[in-house]
Amino acid sequence: MNLFDIAQKLGIPIDSEHIEASKAMDVKGLNTLQDAISSEISFLENNKYLSQLENTRAGAVFVTTHYKEHLPSSCIPLVCDTPYLQLAYCSKFFALPLIQKDGQEAKVSNSATIMSNVNIGLDSSIGENTTIMSSTFIGDNVTIGDNCIIYPNVTIYRDTIIGDNVTIHAGTVIGSDGFGFATNSNGEHIKIYQNGNVKIGSNVEIGANCTIDRAAFASTIIEDMVRIDNLVHIAHNCKIGYGSVLVTQVGLSGSTTLGEYVVMAGQSATTGHLSIAPHTTISGRGVVSKSITEPKKQWAGFPLMEHRSWLRMQGKIQKLCFPKDS
Amino acid sequence: MNLFDIAQKLGIPIDSEHIEASKAMDVKGLNTLQDAISSEISFLENNKYLSQLENTRAGAVFVTTHYKEHLPSSCIPLVCDTPYLQLAYCSKFFALPLIQKDGQEAKVSNSATIMSNVNIGLDSSIGENTTIMSSTFIGDNVTIGDNCIIYPNVTIYRDTIIGDNVTIHAGTVIGSDGFGFATNSNGEHIKIYQNGNVKIGSNVEIGANCTIDRAAFASTIIEDMVRIDNLVHIAHNCKIGYGSVLVTQVGLSGSTTLGEYVVMAGQSATTGHLSIAPHTTISGRGVVSKSITEPKKQWAGFPLMEHRSWLRMQGKIQKLCFPKDS
Amino acid sequence: MNLFDIAQKLGIPIDSEHIEASKAMDVKGLNTLQDAISSEISFLENNKYLSQLENTRAGAVFVTTHYKEHLPSSCIPLVCDTPYLQLAYCSKFFALPLIQKDGQEAKVSNSATIMSNVNIGLDSSIGENTTIMSSTFIGDNVTIGDNCIIYPNVTIYRDTIIGDNVTIHAGTVIGSDGFGFATNSNGEHIKIYQNGNVKIGSNVEIGANCTIDRAAFASTIIEDMVRIDNLVHIAHNCKIGYGSVLVTQVGLSGSTTLGEYVVMAGQSATTGHLSIAPHTTISGRGVVSKSITEPKKQWAGFPLMEHRSWLRMQGKIQKLCFPKDS
Repeated sequence: MNLFDIAQKLGIPIDSEHIEASKAMDVKGLNTLQDAISSEISFLENNKYLSQLENTRAGAVFVTTHYKEHLPSSCIPLVCDTPYLQLAYCSKFFALPLIQKDGQEAKVSNSATIMSNVNIGLDSSIGENTTIMSSTFIGDNVTIGDNCIIYPNVTIYRDTIIGDNVTIHAGTVIGSDGFGFATNSNGEHIKIYQNGNVKIGSNVEIGANCTIDRAAFASTIIEDMVRIDNLVHIAHNCKIGYGSVLVTQVGLSGSTTLGEYVVMAGQSATTGHLSIAPHTTISGRGVVSKSITEPKKQWAGFPLMEHRSWLRMQGKIQKLCFPKDS
Repeated sequence: MNLFDIAQKLGIPIDSEHIEASKAMDVKGLNTLQDAISSEISFLENNKYLSQLENTRAGAVFVTTHYKEHLPSSCIPLVCDTPYLQLAYCSKFFALPLIQKDGQEAKVSNSATIMSNVNIGLDSSIGENTTIMSSTFIGDNVTIGDNCIIYPNVTIYRDTIIGDNVTIHAGTVIGSDGFGFATNSNGEHIKIYQNGNVKIGSNVEIGANCTIDRAAFASTIIEDMVRIDNLVHIAHNCKIGYGSVLVTQVGLSGSTTLGEYVVMAGQSATTGHLSIAPHTTISGRGVVSKSITEPKKQWAGFPLMEHRSWLRMQGKIQKLCFPKDS
Repeated sequence: MNLFDIAQKLGIPIDSEHIEASKAMDVKGLNTLQDAISSEISFLENNKYLSQLENTRAGAVFVTTHYKEHLPSSCIPLVCDTPYLQLAYCSKFFALPLIQKDGQEAKVSNSATIMSNVNIGLDSSIGENTTIMSSTFIGDNVTIGDNCIIYPNVTIYRDTIIGDNVTIHAGTVIGSDGFGFATNSNGEHIKIYQNGNVKIGSNVEIGANCTIDRAAFASTIIEDMVRIDNLVHIAHNCKIGYGSVLVTQVGLSGSTTLGEYVVMAGQSATTGHLSIAPHTTISGRGVVSKSITEPKKQWAGFPLMEHRSWLRMQGKIQKLCFPKDS
């Protein structure tokens, strides 16, 4: 679909100077300002990303008239009042087929074990010595490497890529839609179609009944050697660094980036769009609401503070409240 | 089953003046004081519902001797020491069959897609263009509307009603038993059979590995346009208002009513038997323990307070505890 | 496998005085210092368990040279720098087969109902009047008693033992691997194979999408009459006492022992390796980080304190922070 047609469908006028270029631009999808390439459309909703706008390689950007002048000259402006909402409407044009009708039958290695009642989609492949247990669903265009164990009742959505020596326990869902919506003037939540995927490295173990959402654009990434306990939620576009450990009931909001060897203890959480430095430990129930840049520290509480400060603070609160007990 | 027989089975004597009426009352089920009709039995356990007792349309009520005089004249008293416990014993008489033996084969529209290893129960129906993916279970007497997507490994218990354009992600459970028990004098927890159902409106999206429990009586209700993230728990008899948003790992206790456009951020919770005014926002980790009557405010913390007060309080606690840092 | 061969594989030298005994010791598995018997190997990593070392009946123990002298004379020392890490490497030798190749076909009682797409493993048995619903997976060597209801899409891993009158709601996972790892000098997390099982008593009800992990050694135990809500996590080697109640989204860390009739309210948690006295109530969101020895009290908060103290403290904090409002 070319950009001109997309803009017409959305009712967004294109400046006469860009009409020819917009007809020539074959749009492949949507992406962030930082990651978009010349065949992709991006958007600017929040002016804290203005410097990314100025440097984007996107072919076109949904932008309010106010920021139009900040676009690089190679980038076609799609001027509108509600860039994020237009992105939502536009995402539907690139929605992936729920179930592929065409494609090659799955390639299952001879040494793989496929138990009963397993569905494996088109264009998918299952590596050497991998076991897929009963009632597990493998969608279309999924790649699973060698020596993996996928326990029963797991659901792996389309386009997921999984390395070697990966274990996924029962009931876990990989690649479900990220929770992305734009709100229109009536307060309605318009779905942003989640057209990315999930990539899981090698030597990863994921517990039971976890959920790892596919990316809105590009990939949600679980790097090698990660360990994930049960009932953990990883939202769209998260990146979990090498060797990190997520303990039970952790909840990571969208676009959380963990460096290598980060430990998130039980029931801890992040508020999204932030990064955590390598070798950081978040204590149980800690809530990370802004980026942590200094590595190798331990943090706790909500609001978050250094673990030792949190311990001191709890002692002081007790003394302030119950002075006679002290 | 008539009321006289039920009372006999439970060992509850009926006053001579009510014996004839009790034999004539064909009991259809149990319900709350507020919602019960003349063919239903209700109960009074907590005297804060005394005004509801005085106005109930229930045909009979489990009640202690103390409150017997408060019943409307049309209502037969079932006088006992432990009304809630008797309700629990009585609920078993109305338990639904786990699997129906009789009924009509499911009506599946020609345009629906049913993947492999799907069970669809008796008396159920699947609408136009709806897709049911592999290993999903649809129980008896379930209605699913048009243009729905039910992802793999979903379980939809009997009697669930789902509107049009509803998406339910993998692993989610709709209609499991609410967590209802009455405790007897030995400390044993006696099950209250959950004889209600779940009703989901149209244009709803529900994430992966959520749990939405069926009602004890009547219905757990998810209204139109609701958006639910992954790993969210909705207990029995909740009502989620139009356009509300529940973010990951939210936990709603029984009989929580959300007005329209309520937002519950990640890991927030309610303690049950309360209502939240329209357009309320509960911040991440907030715990709602009593009703919120004023609309359009944002709340946070546990105990809950206005979000801006919570922010100020956290700043003040830091200053009180670490005065030198200030 | 005899102890001598195991030590050789791990590169651990055995003192000449113990070589003969190590060749004679047919090792059956691994266990804690407290529970190990003469055919089992144990380990000492933390000197708080030193008295257990001195009294262990284990046939051999991974131990640093410093504590070697504390072993009972009947116990063979496996001297190494990193006992817990050696335990992890050793656990792989006793890993259970993922899927049995040999064994007897499952014994399913004539009165049991097995719905469609159910897998039942070898050496398993299903009792009288038990119903196994669609797409549920029952692994090898599983015993399920009489009058049980196992709802759809449940996964029951190998070796699980379930009593009579047990109900397990949809999507729940029983017997997944505990989250056990030892970290080597490169920071890599080496899996401790979870060679124990889960034992569930009688008259137990477990909600939807819960996870109950198998034990590292011996058993994770759910005693009779326990009630578990949805999305609850129970880690390896927990023991849940008779009549206890776990409300939604509770997370119990490894080796938590609950006495009888303990109530853990919604979203509460434990940090593991601790015990809670009978008839204790933990309020919603409470975090138990050390053992509770006095029965029949109610606790709240994090850090945990008596519920009434927590209430008073919250009031005092408000007064300290907002003196004018008081």
